[in-house]
Amino acid sequence: MIAKSIESLFEQRQDHFLIPAEIVANVQETNHLDHAFLVLTKIKYSKIPVLDNEQHFKGLLSLSMIAETMLGMNGIDPSTLPRHQVREIMQTDVPTIELPYDIEEILHLLVDQPFLVVVDKDQIFTGIVTRREIMKGFNYTAHELEHYFTVTEKQTEKIEQES
Amino acid sequence: MIAKSIESLFEQRQDHFLIPAEIVANVQETNHLDHAFLVLTKIKYSKIPVLDNEQHFKGLLSLSMIAETMLGMNGIDPSTLPRHQVREIMQTDVPTIELPYDIEEILHLLVDQPFLVVVDKDQIFTGIVTRREIMKGFNYTAHELEHYFTVTEKQTEKIEQES
Repeated sequence: MIAKSIESLFEQRQDHFLIPAEIVANVQETNHLDHAFLVLTKIKYSKIPVLDNEQHFKGLLSLSMIAETMLGMNGIDPSTLPRHQVREIMQTDVPTIELPYDIEEILHLLVDQPFLVVVDKDQIFTGIVTRREIMKGFNYTAHELEHYFTVTEKQTEKIEQES
Repeated sequence: MIAKSIESLFEQRQDHFLIPAEIVANVQETNHLDHAFLVLTKIKYSKIPVLDNEQHFKGLLSLSMIAETMLGMNGIDPSTLPRHQVREIMQTDVPTIELPYDIEEILHLLVDQPFLVVVDKDQIFTGIVTRREIMKGFNYTAHELEHYFTVTEKQTEKIEQES
């Protein structure tokens, strides 16, 4: 269980969490790797969502996944990229979340994921929640906690100070 | 100012923040881009530190910076990579931090940086502080706040609940 005070401050910010699907770069699972290479080179995210042609979320793709397929006997070789599709190399073991947000779950999953994929009940890609937005929420919480709450140290549970 | 209670819980965790230089993959500023391409393809970070031959921090390099230099008139062309050095394309407008940690500064800078470069007073690369470790610190704080502190909502500053 996370502290109710922290959860309630985070909930104030939750309308800011979602970066909606319409403005998140993506690739189709049947796109060829040369196309995906161009998309990933031009955007700021190092991993992007892979969708099917009905907008269902299928996996994640990074530039290093494509780069790995370019490493062969002859050094760096992009000639095979047009012959392979995104779905052959994408990462598929990806946690997804649904609305409404479970703040504790988001904080937990973002330890190991740079962003979380949000889907609806039919697995349609809805958007992403990034560590960046959660860092903003955390800054807000750290600054506002003592504005909304009275916080006093318990005498029985003294924090050990580092020397 | 951030809440003292949150700051003190973070300080309990600060020995975990640093990933030391010895275990962070890096490239030298004079490495050629074909070598850097191999290094960045094989590691999990999407950006890595660039050092000079005395371990001074000089900048950051990502796979997409290298990929961009491969895009030419003839599509994806790796043939020029061995002719260019990392220092020609690396990112140099990078904030750095020094020990001891300023928790408020770290939380602020990590909104826009996926990790922070730690240097000593002579700009020698010491390690990195990642969003991952700070997310762990935040989880700890959210779980332990009400163990160490009594937190009561101020009646005069009621949080507006979302419907």
